Amino acid sequence: MSKNASRTAGRHFLQIPGPTPVPDRILRAMDTPVIDHRGPGFATVAKQSLEGIKTIFKTTNPVIIYTATGTGAWEAALVNTLSAGDKVLMVETGQFATLWKKLAEKLGLKPELIPTDWRIGADPALVEARLREDKGHEIKAVCIVHNETSTGALSPIAEIRKAIDAAKHPALLIVDTISSLASADYRHDEWGVDVTVGGSQKGLMLPPGMSFNAVSDKALKAAATSKLPKSFWSWEDMIAANKTGYFPYTPATNMLHGLNVAIDMLHEEGLDNVFARHDRHAEATRRAVRAWGFEVLVKDAKYFSPTITAVLLPEGQNADKLRAVALDNFDISYGLSFGPFFGRFFRIGHLGDTNDLTIIAALAGAEMGLELAGIPFKKGGVQAAMDYLVSAHQGAATGKAA
Amino acid sequence: MSKNASRTAGRHFLQIPGPTPVPDRILRAMDTPVIDHRGPGFATVAKQSLEGIKTIFKTTNPVIIYTATGTGAWEAALVNTLSAGDKVLMVETGQFATLWKKLAEKLGLKPELIPTDWRIGADPALVEARLREDKGHEIKAVCIVHNETSTGALSPIAEIRKAIDAAKHPALLIVDTISSLASADYRHDEWGVDVTVGGSQKGLMLPPGMSFNAVSDKALKAAATSKLPKSFWSWEDMIAANKTGYFPYTPATNMLHGLNVAIDMLHEEGLDNVFARHDRHAEATRRAVRAWGFEVLVKDAKYFSPTITAVLLPEGQNADKLRAVALDNFDISYGLSFGPFFGRFFRIGHLGDTNDLTIIAALAGAEMGLELAGIPFKKGGVQAAMDYLVSAHQGAATGKAA
Amino acid sequence: MSKNASRTAGRHFLQIPGPTPVPDRILRAMDTPVIDHRGPGFATVAKQSLEGIKTIFKTTNPVIIYTATGTGAWEAALVNTLSAGDKVLMVETGQFATLWKKLAEKLGLKPELIPTDWRIGADPALVEARLREDKGHEIKAVCIVHNETSTGALSPIAEIRKAIDAAKHPALLIVDTISSLASADYRHDEWGVDVTVGGSQKGLMLPPGMSFNAVSDKALKAAATSKLPKSFWSWEDMIAANKTGYFPYTPATNMLHGLNVAIDMLHEEGLDNVFARHDRHAEATRRAVRAWGFEVLVKDAKYFSPTITAVLLPEGQNADKLRAVALDNFDISYGLSFGPFFGRFFRIGHLGDTNDLTIIAALAGAEMGLELAGIPFKKGGVQAAMDYLVSAHQGAATGKAA
Amino acid sequence: MSKNASRTAGRHFLQIPGPTPVPDRILRAMDTPVIDHRGPGFATVAKQSLEGIKTIFKTTNPVIIYTATGTGAWEAALVNTLSAGDKVLMVETGQFATLWKKLAEKLGLKPELIPTDWRIGADPALVEARLREDKGHEIKAVCIVHNETSTGALSPIAEIRKAIDAAKHPALLIVDTISSLASADYRHDEWGVDVTVGGSQKGLMLPPGMSFNAVSDKALKAAATSKLPKSFWSWEDMIAANKTGYFPYTPATNMLHGLNVAIDMLHEEGLDNVFARHDRHAEATRRAVRAWGFEVLVKDAKYFSPTITAVLLPEGQNADKLRAVALDNFDISYGLSFGPFFGRFFRIGHLGDTNDLTIIAALAGAEMGLELAGIPFKKGGVQAAMDYLVSAHQGAATGKAA
Repeated sequence: MSKNASRTAGRHFLQIPGPTPVPDRILRAMDTPVIDHRGPGFATVAKQSLEGIKTIFKTTNPVIIYTATGTGAWEAALVNTLSAGDKVLMVETGQFATLWKKLAEKLGLKPELIPTDWRIGADPALVEARLREDKGHEIKAVCIVHNETSTGALSPIAEIRKAIDAAKHPALLIVDTISSLASADYRHDEWGVDVTVGGSQKGLMLPPGMSFNAVSDKALKAAATSKLPKSFWSWEDMIAANKTGYFPYTPATNMLHGLNVAIDMLHEEGLDNVFARHDRHAEATRRAVRAWGFEVLVKDAKYFSPTITAVLLPEGQNADKLRAVALDNFDISYGLSFGPFFGRFFRIGHLGDTNDLTIIAALAGAEMGLELAGIPFKKGGVQAAMDYLVSAHQGAATGKAA
Repeated sequence: MSKNASRTAGRHFLQIPGPTPVPDRILRAMDTPVIDHRGPGFATVAKQSLEGIKTIFKTTNPVIIYTATGTGAWEAALVNTLSAGDKVLMVETGQFATLWKKLAEKLGLKPELIPTDWRIGADPALVEARLREDKGHEIKAVCIVHNETSTGALSPIAEIRKAIDAAKHPALLIVDTISSLASADYRHDEWGVDVTVGGSQKGLMLPPGMSFNAVSDKALKAAATSKLPKSFWSWEDMIAANKTGYFPYTPATNMLHGLNVAIDMLHEEGLDNVFARHDRHAEATRRAVRAWGFEVLVKDAKYFSPTITAVLLPEGQNADKLRAVALDNFDISYGLSFGPFFGRFFRIGHLGDTNDLTIIAALAGAEMGLELAGIPFKKGGVQAAMDYLVSAHQGAATGKAA
Repeated sequence: MSKNASRTAGRHFLQIPGPTPVPDRILRAMDTPVIDHRGPGFATVAKQSLEGIKTIFKTTNPVIIYTATGTGAWEAALVNTLSAGDKVLMVETGQFATLWKKLAEKLGLKPELIPTDWRIGADPALVEARLREDKGHEIKAVCIVHNETSTGALSPIAEIRKAIDAAKHPALLIVDTISSLASADYRHDEWGVDVTVGGSQKGLMLPPGMSFNAVSDKALKAAATSKLPKSFWSWEDMIAANKTGYFPYTPATNMLHGLNVAIDMLHEEGLDNVFARHDRHAEATRRAVRAWGFEVLVKDAKYFSPTITAVLLPEGQNADKLRAVALDNFDISYGLSFGPFFGRFFRIGHLGDTNDLTIIAALAGAEMGLELAGIPFKKGGVQAAMDYLVSAHQGAATGKAA
Repeated sequence: MSKNASRTAGRHFLQIPGPTPVPDRILRAMDTPVIDHRGPGFATVAKQSLEGIKTIFKTTNPVIIYTATGTGAWEAALVNTLSAGDKVLMVETGQFATLWKKLAEKLGLKPELIPTDWRIGADPALVEARLREDKGHEIKAVCIVHNETSTGALSPIAEIRKAIDAAKHPALLIVDTISSLASADYRHDEWGVDVTVGGSQKGLMLPPGMSFNAVSDKALKAAATSKLPKSFWSWEDMIAANKTGYFPYTPATNMLHGLNVAIDMLHEEGLDNVFARHDRHAEATRRAVRAWGFEVLVKDAKYFSPTITAVLLPEGQNADKLRAVALDNFDISYGLSFGPFFGRFFRIGHLGDTNDLTIIAALAGAEMGLELAGIPFKKGGVQAAMDYLVSAHQGAATGKAA
C-alpha cells in the first residue's frame, strides 16, 4: 500500500521457525552494562543460569552453556564423545538432520543416515532394526533431531530410547532439541538421553548466540576417552569452572542475564502451560491449513510438531511467491522450504513468546497472501482456527479438554 | 487457558483509542541518558522538535510543547486566549467535548454546548446558526473536538471554519486533535484554526506526557489581552525561550528525543500514506462490525473516524463483558463506553503504529470474545475485513483505488 | 584532543544540579510498552507509586502526582490553596525563590519577598518577625525553597515551622523540595509542612516530566475554599480518582514504572544511607573548593546544601569560561550562575545516583578546567577530596564518624 | 559506607582489561526485535558488518565473523590453517600466550614457546633467530599475542613480520589482537599478517559474544590443505555464504546491529583519534603508577600497552587486597594478576569507550584503595595524571605534541 515509503508501520510478524520474537523483558535484561566476568557478582548470575537451565532440560546433571549458536552445540556433542572414524547412526528427517550428518563427516566421523521421505519423523522401529544388525557395536551414537525444523516433524525420543534398549545396544543417544526445547515436552534424564543439544533462539525466547549440551553420566564417561580434538567445545574445563560459578573463558554475560529472565518467565507461565499453548497453536494452524484445502507436510499425526507447521501447496504452486507477497504486503516472515519439496511448502513458526491473536495474524497473513499471490485455495482457514481457539478456551473454562 | 499462570505469553494487544503502541525505535530513543537542558547540545534537539512538530500540524506558526498530557493543553488553549466570564461555544460530540466544557467552567468561562446525540460529529450548520444569533459577538471562541475519542466521530473542521466565516463571526476557532493528529488529515494553517490542541500518545506514537498548542497570529493577539491567570501554560515565555532552542523551565528532554524520532518516522512513511493506512484500517473494521450484524455507533458516514470505531451492541448486551472476556482470554484491550450508550458499546482503536495484521488480530479478539461472552452475533467479521484488505492491496498494486 | 571528531568518547558527566543521571534500571523500566491506563493492571502500578511516594515525603497523607515538571507543581501548590489577591510570604534565597515569586504574581497573588544576599538560606528569625507584624493574618502562606538550587543553600524547614508557630500565625507552610527530595533529610508530616512541592529529575533519579504535591489536612481544608481557577492542577479530582488507583486523565504511565523502581532503589540503599552519601559528597566537594583557594558561595555552614555546591571564583574571573573549557575538554557539565554573582560562580551538582569516584571525576574536571581556562587557583582540590573520602570510609569501617 | 544496603549507588567503574563499558548507543542498537536471518533485510545489515569490520582490521580481504568469544577465534585461526602434528612457534608473553599454547596442544599441534619473563612483549630478534634455525621449515605458523592482556605488553607486529622475512621463512603469521583491536594501531594487510584474531568486547565496545578472523590470501591457501577437522569454525562455508550477505547458520543478529554502530562510532571519532586517546590514557596511568612509587610491570617502554597497565606492587604486598578494598568501597573493578607475579600486580584497563575523567576516577579508586588497604605508597598519582592530561590538552590546543 505504501510502496514509496521507506518505513513499514507497526511491528514485523516474525513467524519463521526461529529465531522467535524476544520478549521486551528479556531484551531489557540484556540491555545492561557488562559486568566483570571474574568479579564476585558474576558467580551469582552464572549459577542462576547453570541451575536454571537444568530445569528446562529436566536434568540434574550439568548443562554446558556455549557462547555460540546451535551449530556449535551440535559439534560439541560429537567432539566431546566420539573419536575419528566412529560410526554414528542418524535419521534423515529433513534438512537439519542432513546438515548434522555433513558436520559429522567434516569432523572425521562415519555417519550413516536412515533414509526417510521428509514427511515423517524418526521411526523407532527402523532405529531398532539397524542397531540389532550392528552386532559389533560399531555404532557409537544414535543422533536424532527431536523436532525437525525444516519439516515440522517431531520424533518420539522416549520410544527411540526404548528401541535402543530393546536392541541392547550401547550407543549413546544424542538429541537435537533446538526447535523444541521449552516448547514441547522434553525430559533429558527420564528419557535416558546422553547428550541433548539446545539453542537460545527458539523456545527460550532469546536472541541467537547461546547454545547448550545437557549431558548424562554415560556421556561424561565417553568424553573421558573421546579422541576428537577439542578446546572451545571441551566439556571438561567448562564443568570444572562452572562449579564455582565461572567460565574458563569470557562468556556472553548479557545473554546470561537474558537466560535467567527467560527461565523465570517459563516457570511463571508453567512449563506444562507452555507446552499446552504450543499444542493449541499447532492444532489451530493445522485446521487452517486443511480448511484452505492444503496438506500439512507431515503426513502422520504421530509426528506433528507443536512448534512448526509446514504447509504443502499443490503441485505447480510456488510457496516462495506466497512468502514474498506476504512479506511485501503484510510485513510477515515465514520459513522457506528445503529438500525434495523445495519450493512447494512454506513453514509457519508458532513457537516461543506467542499468543492466540498472533497466531491468527500469522494465519491471516498467509490466507490474504495466498489470494494476492493468485494461488488457488479455499477461504476459511482463519475462521477454522478461530473456531478451534474458541472451543479450546471454552474447554479450559469448563475444565474439559478442548 | 493458563489461568493459574502468573505470566501471559506474547505481547499485549493495546487496541484502546490511545495511548497507542509505542514503536521500539521511539522507546529506545527515549532510553538514553538525560542531557543538560541548558547546554549547547540541547538546543539542537529542541529546535528539531520545535520545527518538526510544525510539519505535523501543517503550520508555519509556533507550536508550544508542554510537558503535560492533553488535558493540560486543553487548559492552555483557553487560559492563553480568554478572560473570566467569556462565552465559548462547544458541540456535545461526546465524553471529551463534555469534559472540555467542564474544564472551561472550572476556569471561570461560560461554555455553551450545542447538544447532539453522540452518534455524529459537530454539524457546521448548527455552529453557523448559533453564531449568526450572536449579534453582539459575545462568543469569544468556538471549541471543537476534531475526533471525538469517546465515540469515533470525526468533525469537518474546514467546514466549521467556513461556517464561522459565513456567519462573519470573530470568534477564535479552537480545535482538539488529540486522537486525530498524525492519523487523520489536518491542516492548522490552511483550515484557519486559531489554536490546535494535540497530544503525544496517539498518532504521534509516543508515551503520554507531552502535549501541544499550535497557534495562529489571531490567537497570539488574543493572548495579549487574555486575563485568565497563567504561568506554566503561558505561551509568552515559551515562545520567547523556544526562539533560542530552550525552554523557560526544565522540559521532558527524553520525550523530545522520542518526538524527533516520531516525526522522522511519520515522514519516512509519508503523511498521506499514514492517513491512507488509517482509512484502510477503519474501513476494514467497519466491515467487520457490519458482518457481525452490529452497528457502528456513528450513524452518518460523513463523520466516520479513521482512528476509532465504536461498536454498538444490540440492546440488552453488555459490552464490558466482551471487553473483560477478550482481555482475560486473548490479552487484548479495547476502549470502554460513555454517556447515553454506556455499557452498550466498546471502542476499537486502530491508530498509531499499527498494520493490517494487527487490525485482523484486533478484530479476531473481538469476534472470538463475542462467542466466549455468549453475545449473539454473526460470524464472518474477520473474513469481511480480510476480503477488504486483500482488495485494497490489489487496488494498490494495479494503481486503482480499492 | 579530538577536535575534528564528531563523537566524544565515553559517558558525559552530568554534574549539573539536576536533572541528574538516570540509573539504567530506571531507564529500562520506562522502556516498556505503554499499558491501558483504564485496565486492571494499571491500578497495581499506580497504587504502588501513590503509596511509595508517601514514604519519600514521609507523609501518610495523599501525594498528588502530576505529569508536569516542577514549575507545574509550584503552580499547583498555590492555585489549590489560595485565592486572587492573597498575600504570600517568600524568602529571596536565590533565583528559584525569585521565579516562584514571579509565578505567584502571574497568578494574581501578592507575594512579599524577604530580601537576602543569596549567600544564605531562609532565616527563621526573619520569617517569625515578619509574621508577628502581620497581626491581621493577611499572609495566607509562607513559601520556602528548601534547597535553593541556584546557590546551594539549604533552609531549616523544621525551624521555619517553629517560627510560624512561635508567631502564632495561621499561614500555610509551602515548601519546594525539588532539589532536596530523596537527597536531604525531609519530613513532611513531622515538620508540619502543608504543601511540599517535589520533582522527579533530581534525587528521585528520574527524567524530568513528573512532579508532586504532598498535602496536609490543613492544605486540603484551604483547598476547599481556594478560589483561584484550576482544572489540570486540581487536587480534588486527583485524590478522588487516585483512591481506586486511577487518574482523572491520562497519566505518564511509563514515568510511573520508573518511579516505582526509583522508590525501590532508594529503600534498598536506605534513605539514611542516601542522605549520608550526599553529605559525604558535599563535604568532599567543599574541601576541594577550599583547597583551590576559593569560597563556597554559601557563607554560613548552617545552610550548606548536601546536593549542590556553588563555587565562587575571585573577582574578575569568569566561571562560564571554566564551564565551557571543562565541557569542551572533559565532556562534563556544571551548573551556571545567577543573580548578584552572575558569571562569578559555577555549581557542582552532587546529587542523585552518584558515587565517590564520580564526585572525584567531577572535581578533577573542574581542577583541570581551571588550569586550562587560565584561572589562578591552588592545586590540591582533588587530593583534599580523596583524603576526606578515605577518612570517611575508614570511619565507616571502624564505626567512628568520619 | 553503606555496608547494610542492598544497593550500591551510581555506576560501576569497569576498569578491567575487558570486557569494556558498552556505550548506550550500542546497547540500544542491540535492544531490538530479532529479524529473519534469511530475509532480504538481513543481507543489508550483514553486508554493512562484513565490509565495515575490514576497515577496523585494515584489510581488503574477508573477515570471518564468529558467534563465539575470542577463544573460539583463536581456535578457528589454527584449525583452518594447520594439520595435526604441525609445529607452531609462540612467544611466552604472558597468561594468554600460555593459554593459546595449551589450546594448540589440545588440537594436536606441536607448539613451541619462546620463553620470556612476562615483563616484555615478543622480541622480533628471538623469533628471527629461532626461524633461522628451522632450516626444514617445520614451523608452520608464528603465533603472537599483539597485546598481552595479562601483563599489558604490546608486541611489535611489523617488526615480527620483518623478522620472519629476514629469516626467509614461509611460516604463517597469526596474531591475536583481542585486547588491542580498535584501540592500538593495527594494519592486517600492510603488516603482512596472515590471520588476525579479534574479539568484540574490548576496543570494539561490544558485549562478549562475537569474534573475528581476518585472513590473508596465503592463509586461505593454507586452509585449502589444512587437515584439522572443522565445521563451526570453517572459513570456507562462511566466506561463501557471506558473499551474498548471509551466514551458513544462524548468526547473532543483534550483535551485528551492535557491531555496525560500533564501527560507525569508531569512524566518527576517527581511528587515529581513538589510538591517540588510548595512548594519552596509558601515559596518564603510567605517570600515576610512578608517582605512587611503583613500577609498571612492563619494564621496557618499547612494549608499553596503550590499553592495559599492570601495576606491580612491592614485594610482600597483596594486589588482590587492593582490588577487593576498591571494589568494596568504590565499586570499581580492576584486573587480577597471573603467572610468576601472581598476587603482586593488578591491571588497570584503560580501553574502549572511556575518557579522561573516567581514567582519573579509575586512578583515584586505586589511590584511595591503596590507602584503605594499608599498602604503603606515595600520594600524588592522581595529581600526576591530571598534570599530564592538562598538558596534553594544552598541547592539542596549541597544535604542539603534549
